[in-house]
Amino acid sequence: MELLKQRIREEGHVLGDKVLKVDSFLNHQIDPVLMMEVGEEFARRFADAGVTKILTIESSGIAAAMTAALKMDVKVVFARKKKSALMNEEVYMTKVHSFTKNETNEVTVLKKFLGANEKVLIIDDFLANGEAAMGLAHLVEQAGSEVVGIGIVIEKAFQDGGKRLRQHGFKVESLARIAAFTDGQVQFVEECVQA
Amino acid sequence: MELLKQRIREEGHVLGDKVLKVDSFLNHQIDPVLMMEVGEEFARRFADAGVTKILTIESSGIAAAMTAALKMDVKVVFARKKKSALMNEEVYMTKVHSFTKNETNEVTVLKKFLGANEKVLIIDDFLANGEAAMGLAHLVEQAGSEVVGIGIVIEKAFQDGGKRLRQHGFKVESLARIAAFTDGQVQFVEECVQA
Repeated sequence: MELLKQRIREEGHVLGDKVLKVDSFLNHQIDPVLMMEVGEEFARRFADAGVTKILTIESSGIAAAMTAALKMDVKVVFARKKKSALMNEEVYMTKVHSFTKNETNEVTVLKKFLGANEKVLIIDDFLANGEAAMGLAHLVEQAGSEVVGIGIVIEKAFQDGGKRLRQHGFKVESLARIAAFTDGQVQFVEECVQA
Repeated sequence: MELLKQRIREEGHVLGDKVLKVDSFLNHQIDPVLMMEVGEEFARRFADAGVTKILTIESSGIAAAMTAALKMDVKVVFARKKKSALMNEEVYMTKVHSFTKNETNEVTVLKKFLGANEKVLIIDDFLANGEAAMGLAHLVEQAGSEVVGIGIVIEKAFQDGGKRLRQHGFKVESLARIAAFTDGQVQFVEECVQA
């Protein structure tokens, strides 16, 4: 998605050889116009998947998931990293380790919002090691539903999450795929490789 | 906002005399179509406030804040309850106590995304004791900016947050104001009282 890559080039900050900060438009400050474009692109890429529900994880996945849900005319559920005191009902739970935050969260979703026989599109802001996406897929599996796709805003293709998810058979669509950070610059995976 | 009240009547679950669960469309599962209507209503109510930025708090405020930001053509920043390992820059910080979760969080926003001389609209999903909104207002104050309004999706008008914020001089607009829960039913504040 060229518009997204352009914003990453203009506003992204590379830290070391693994970290990209895009907190000016994606995961702290949010540019709602860009997010609408992102949602539209997800809707286009998964138009034939028969999506009935979108699943994401708080907090940074919510904006992109919501705009995609709007365009696809479905509802979105965000899994919680911390169980709310109000969630006194049955949940599906899985553990997700965050390397960025160096912590493991018990990620939950209320059973009543993730029924059986749904065709679920998982959406998240970043894909690195694939921990979050695998965790969300595990919740969908527990519910007896099917993951029909995984939509990622930015994939760090030099880490193994994408490979792991694709080997698992998931259709993964990433709107920007990063091959490497070279001298503080973002190198994107060539489009021809992406196909 | 009649559409919102209707959804609360249809899908809200009253627990005891203080708690309303609206997790089927607002703060766990999200109805993106309703959220667009909510954003539009906020944009209408604060059309003359000269809003330059929207501030909310993760996670449940993000959906409504983003749609309002889209309609008002501004960016939205969500304050974080837990400092990201990537937030190695200067932040504004305030403490916010959550009665629902019975915990106090250090809520932060990166200084670079909350500059001076902004006209900030604060948006959140619920208003009860006013802790979160007061905390966000405190962040805006630290930044040397002005809170031009506080937009709330659901106000529990029988708790003192709304009174506290209005006495402080803030313009508070709540799209649904709840007077009481009577026999498990939601009683809304009459519109004529709201003016």
